[in-house]
Amino acid sequence: MSKSIRVLASANAMKGSLSAKEASNMMASGAQKAISKFSEQFGQKFNGEFLIKPIADGGDDTVDVIADSFYINTIKGPLLDPVEARWGSLGDTAVIEMAKASGIALLPEDKLDPFTTTTFGTGQLILAAIEKGFKKILLTIGGSATVDGGIGALAAMGAQFYDKEDKIIEPYGNSALGKVARIDFSAFEKFKDVQFSIACDVDNILLGDKGSAAIFGPQKLRPSIRNDREAKMKAVSQMNANLENFANIIQKTTNKDIRMVKGIGAAGGLSIGFVAVFDALLRPGSEFILDMLGITDELHPDIVITSEGKCDVSTLNNKAPYALIRRFSNSYSIVLTGAIESEEVEQKLNDAGASIVMTIEDGAISLSDSMKRCGELMERASYRAVYSYLRAHFK
Amino acid sequence: MSKSIRVLASANAMKGSLSAKEASNMMASGAQKAISKFSEQFGQKFNGEFLIKPIADGGDDTVDVIADSFYINTIKGPLLDPVEARWGSLGDTAVIEMAKASGIALLPEDKLDPFTTTTFGTGQLILAAIEKGFKKILLTIGGSATVDGGIGALAAMGAQFYDKEDKIIEPYGNSALGKVARIDFSAFEKFKDVQFSIACDVDNILLGDKGSAAIFGPQKLRPSIRNDREAKMKAVSQMNANLENFANIIQKTTNKDIRMVKGIGAAGGLSIGFVAVFDALLRPGSEFILDMLGITDELHPDIVITSEGKCDVSTLNNKAPYALIRRFSNSYSIVLTGAIESEEVEQKLNDAGASIVMTIEDGAISLSDSMKRCGELMERASYRAVYSYLRAHFK
Repeated sequence: MSKSIRVLASANAMKGSLSAKEASNMMASGAQKAISKFSEQFGQKFNGEFLIKPIADGGDDTVDVIADSFYINTIKGPLLDPVEARWGSLGDTAVIEMAKASGIALLPEDKLDPFTTTTFGTGQLILAAIEKGFKKILLTIGGSATVDGGIGALAAMGAQFYDKEDKIIEPYGNSALGKVARIDFSAFEKFKDVQFSIACDVDNILLGDKGSAAIFGPQKLRPSIRNDREAKMKAVSQMNANLENFANIIQKTTNKDIRMVKGIGAAGGLSIGFVAVFDALLRPGSEFILDMLGITDELHPDIVITSEGKCDVSTLNNKAPYALIRRFSNSYSIVLTGAIESEEVEQKLNDAGASIVMTIEDGAISLSDSMKRCGELMERASYRAVYSYLRAHFK
Repeated sequence: MSKSIRVLASANAMKGSLSAKEASNMMASGAQKAISKFSEQFGQKFNGEFLIKPIADGGDDTVDVIADSFYINTIKGPLLDPVEARWGSLGDTAVIEMAKASGIALLPEDKLDPFTTTTFGTGQLILAAIEKGFKKILLTIGGSATVDGGIGALAAMGAQFYDKEDKIIEPYGNSALGKVARIDFSAFEKFKDVQFSIACDVDNILLGDKGSAAIFGPQKLRPSIRNDREAKMKAVSQMNANLENFANIIQKTTNKDIRMVKGIGAAGGLSIGFVAVFDALLRPGSEFILDMLGITDELHPDIVITSEGKCDVSTLNNKAPYALIRRFSNSYSIVLTGAIESEEVEQKLNDAGASIVMTIEDGAISLSDSMKRCGELMERASYRAVYSYLRAHFK
């Protein structure tokens, strides 16, 4: 009789070395070697059953991991300059990654300016997906250059915004939010059978000390302002006031108060309109992505293997590997990593469910060598961890 | 009810970083943290029971690990120059490390010359131990500068050697072996209640292709000869012939043929006389040392933790950690190391019984940083490996 060992290999990308898929494949290969070795040594017939499911965090490049079909549209970038943005689909769901259209990585530091940067391009991508016939939209948000409350995206989709004199306003950037006195969402009638889901990585509310402007605003300012304490505080305060005005008008228009929705502070308030108008569901990015990829409890793997370039405090902030080990806390879970920041981080990963957090290095080597040899090292570390599990569990 | 987890922490020294004892302590500390963490997380009351037993290989510095009392005698070194040599005792056994008196490390390379280098000092240490009242002598051999068949040591203890003309010969170096025609062991009467044991790391026989001269002779020649193929072969052939003559005379004198005894080729044939005259038992060094230290099957540890500066092919040659994991192949055994040479070495360690071979590095770091932080890294790796065992085994 033979026993099946069910292995879920779900790597996060090892940035600069391996894609999530490549890393997942190496993990599975190492696990296979370990199962073979153990079976051969102890005359126990184990078979490996491998589920290879690369993961991502909801941040940059999430769409590349989640989607299986891709499209490219030329849209308006964060400063209305043309950007070729990639989006994709998985089954009947379109996957739009806002970072590809309105991301902070699209701009040089000295062009940063949340008062003018816009999510217009993200709205254009959504529109393109709807026009292609998609009725389910998954929007992954994070890494945005904007604090525009999603006014740009809503405008791209057809909403119109008026000021106190009932004149149409230019719907670009945080500055526009302060001028809004009335909104016309009538163009959205045609989207009434579209379902929106939003995956975000943080659970901040919209306003105040824990809000979008206070927590994420500064990093979207150009360095000359960000590093000037007074200028920075003034900018944050202005962004917050503009967001507040916009939230008020949204409430007046839709009868919904979205201020305290968890996650609504992510990506410069991009979700405000989607939650208020479309009842979009905001969910933690990592959890959402695991669901999307079919990485659910029902898989009941014996062993879960995941990876993270470096395990540090940001890993603990529900990045995909963290969500994964929490989800499978009844399995034996292995986190392979280039580096473990501290004993504390390691123990917190253990608390979350990690059975072992292991560096891939096979000795004292340089970072560049470790990155160059990442595939081989990943495979060997996977062998090591799986073999040791089999020894501890079965022999 | 609480369950006891029995941990045997038996480190080899991490050369240049930690002594075997320091490393063992760090291992035990990491294991304790892991057991506490696991107990706290899963409400299972585990207690750690720690056996801290540093180990060594039988090579350099073995006495420092094995013995618990020490003595220093000034004796004649490999070239009859004065050397302060350390020896020790554990219980009623004197522990003499030949490398301390007649070791290759005591000479600069260009002074190497097996035709003149002698084990006389090793014999002096043995004599000193007997004079102190020890009746049990453990001789650890290896790392010798000599191919003198132990003639020096025997001479220091009172044996007398004669040539064909029945003239007393100077008993120093391999050259002397060729001249011996008769031996007088009558001075050894007074040692008849002394028991000799010899621990050596190799199992070579005395003569021929796998013999003392052929395998170990070249490394004891000075570079100018060692690197000259013809001179080297001539020297090896001469050393072998001299050893053969000595073995013949020993056989004539004692009626014992020691030529094919396993290990008799170690340390330039140092053991010849001890085996022939005193019925000394030659045993693999690592096994012997484990026994001496009370690291026996009866300990039945749940977990064995050991260390090796670098796991390479030499580790597989029955170095102490290797002997340890073989001895406890029913326990869960952890090998912590600065580096793993190759996948092949790792798998062979698994074959020998290692449940996990794990580097201590917590990321890509330089060798000097790894060595500087060795204690901390050792403790953390021990935590990691023991915690993962508990997860795999109990949860």
